[in-house]
Amino acid sequence: MPVSHIILLTDFGTKDPFCGILHGIIKSIAPEASILDLTHGIEPRNIQEAAFVLEDSFAYFPPQSLFVCVVDPGVGSNRAILWAECSGYTFLAPDNGLLSYVLQDRSNYKLRKVTNAGLYHSRGVSKTFHGRDIFAPVAARLAQGLDPEKIGPEIRNFVSLKLPKRRNSENLAETVVIGIDHFGNLLTNYRFEGKQKADRVRAVEICGQIIAFSSGTYADHSGQLFAHCNSFNRLEISEGSGSARARLGAKPGTHVRIEYEEKQI
Amino acid sequence: MPVSHIILLTDFGTKDPFCGILHGIIKSIAPEASILDLTHGIEPRNIQEAAFVLEDSFAYFPPQSLFVCVVDPGVGSNRAILWAECSGYTFLAPDNGLLSYVLQDRSNYKLRKVTNAGLYHSRGVSKTFHGRDIFAPVAARLAQGLDPEKIGPEIRNFVSLKLPKRRNSENLAETVVIGIDHFGNLLTNYRFEGKQKADRVRAVEICGQIIAFSSGTYADHSGQLFAHCNSFNRLEISEGSGSARARLGAKPGTHVRIEYEEKQI
Amino acid sequence: MPVSHIILLTDFGTKDPFCGILHGIIKSIAPEASILDLTHGIEPRNIQEAAFVLEDSFAYFPPQSLFVCVVDPGVGSNRAILWAECSGYTFLAPDNGLLSYVLQDRSNYKLRKVTNAGLYHSRGVSKTFHGRDIFAPVAARLAQGLDPEKIGPEIRNFVSLKLPKRRNSENLAETVVIGIDHFGNLLTNYRFEGKQKADRVRAVEICGQIIAFSSGTYADHSGQLFAHCNSFNRLEISEGSGSARARLGAKPGTHVRIEYEEKQI
Repeated sequence: MPVSHIILLTDFGTKDPFCGILHGIIKSIAPEASILDLTHGIEPRNIQEAAFVLEDSFAYFPPQSLFVCVVDPGVGSNRAILWAECSGYTFLAPDNGLLSYVLQDRSNYKLRKVTNAGLYHSRGVSKTFHGRDIFAPVAARLAQGLDPEKIGPEIRNFVSLKLPKRRNSENLAETVVIGIDHFGNLLTNYRFEGKQKADRVRAVEICGQIIAFSSGTYADHSGQLFAHCNSFNRLEISEGSGSARARLGAKPGTHVRIEYEEKQI
Repeated sequence: MPVSHIILLTDFGTKDPFCGILHGIIKSIAPEASILDLTHGIEPRNIQEAAFVLEDSFAYFPPQSLFVCVVDPGVGSNRAILWAECSGYTFLAPDNGLLSYVLQDRSNYKLRKVTNAGLYHSRGVSKTFHGRDIFAPVAARLAQGLDPEKIGPEIRNFVSLKLPKRRNSENLAETVVIGIDHFGNLLTNYRFEGKQKADRVRAVEICGQIIAFSSGTYADHSGQLFAHCNSFNRLEISEGSGSARARLGAKPGTHVRIEYEEKQI
Repeated sequence: MPVSHIILLTDFGTKDPFCGILHGIIKSIAPEASILDLTHGIEPRNIQEAAFVLEDSFAYFPPQSLFVCVVDPGVGSNRAILWAECSGYTFLAPDNGLLSYVLQDRSNYKLRKVTNAGLYHSRGVSKTFHGRDIFAPVAARLAQGLDPEKIGPEIRNFVSLKLPKRRNSENLAETVVIGIDHFGNLLTNYRFEGKQKADRVRAVEICGQIIAFSSGTYADHSGQLFAHCNSFNRLEISEGSGSARARLGAKPGTHVRIEYEEKQI
């Protein structure tokens, strides 16, 4: 499968030259490569946030995109680097769980361990910046048409993140805040599957407050807290014209209790 | 009029995957489209700031650029989405005033209401992310050469922001701080028309301080507050080597009084 | 030497439209130009940080890249603007020291003073935004193939930054923190030349703490402070899984004392 675009996902931030250097290296090796930035704003070393963002985002990119995912607290250690092919896309990421939400529940993936040091940066490999020394050069060579077989051997297993615990009974579920966006909206690990279930949610409890579930818009809830099914089908808690984070003092890891309607017979 | 480039202006910030996803969708539909980011740093939901930034910036972009402007607190409500053509550029924006400074005082604009749901994202339209579900797909199709007639019907009226109040007498004017840049410079709503008027400003009063107007540079005023005509012909209050915001404690909305020289006869 | 890519390095931040406008102007003049962002996150007016970042980064970009470097507290004053050619790259920057680490110790550079006002922006030149009015238009014309002779006359001298002081004795050296990255790592002015010297460092003293030097990875030092040779061959002080800045309260300018092993005979 050829590579159409290289998509970058990191926790590098935008203050430092790090993501600029990734672009520079890729363009040095593959001048025609098309590079897009998914985001460099993952919280430093937060593998789980990166895994969720990748799961929510990848299908909006062109087929045959190669995602280069560098949230890598184990850089320089003996953690492996993976190449994966799945659902018409390919991925490079440390084997630390970052790919687990993309790959899990899918049986038709291909997986390789990146081991061919001949593909790494010609200046050698540091202990602390594999984005520059391994990920970018390997991605650029794949964009140039390198056969993935040249990367390293096929493998079957990968490190899999546990999903944050979620307990369910008939009329109750528990989930947690997994991220907070730029607008102060609280994203949870709870994903609605099909419309029916969203219709049954009545309210959530978070930070000691009961917040009604609504199918309305932000504008309908100006100045008010509300829970809703967001544009990625996740349960989200928002303030229609402000910041739910500021109103509630919630943070990643904060517990959320979901109450369903009594079951109708 | 064909589209040369797609220019993005949003309040999405750069932490989340939102602006990356816009790029992904546009490239999925129009692989050859050239996309530039004007900024994603508009204050969340600040339509007026977006309107000013667009007014100050659009003419520096290539002719036939299409500006995709998503500062949209009414997303999912019954607010319309506009397509506009004006001064050799085209625009997509919510009908919330964002385009008002670009369009006002210009009579030769064309305006359409975006209504053709056949152009929206194939996964459907959420209540909370029309940037992804409507703006980006429509922009990509325009970049592919879609006739704007296919977007929706022509209209004549649009929501127009009131400019922040500005009172003038012979030797006095009042204006407000409308934004603060990365360097702590205070931007005001006061725009100089022609050089003559700038020459007549003597001083401004803000936060209880009288600050002299100067035609000098930042370097001329190292460590000092000064008022000047900035590079967008707006009245700006700066500290030559530091942050006027920090020195004055000003913020958007802070009042500014402008004193002119006595009129010469 | 033709230009392959235009690389932007500024202190503009990403909140304002400033770096978007640079892209817009370059694309208006040179529609085919390839533009990459090295970073816009240099601390406002910090020429030394820009000089270090440029020195550490430029060689990772494609040959014949033109670096447009705008950290320019003297904008509008009589400071000159330089064009330089060195090591297969070209540069535009204010003559304020920004290029000094790239040029110093290299004798084979070419240097010109930018003086040809016919190349500047057709709307004229403001006193406060030469990135827009001079740097971007000149860069775009160079990307279009303009002969550098047309920019202005050759010169030999340029403003050179003093390196932060570093005192050395047999077993001791002193350096300073010159920057702090997104992860809270403390970067110093101390650059290792060759592997041997790094092997001889035993510990550093900073903020009253003695911190051991290690050749291990971040993951080896989870929860611990350590000093190491980073991926740019600089002495760096890190906390393996957190922020050394937060742990030590260090900031740019903080002194660092380096202790070497006793010399072996």
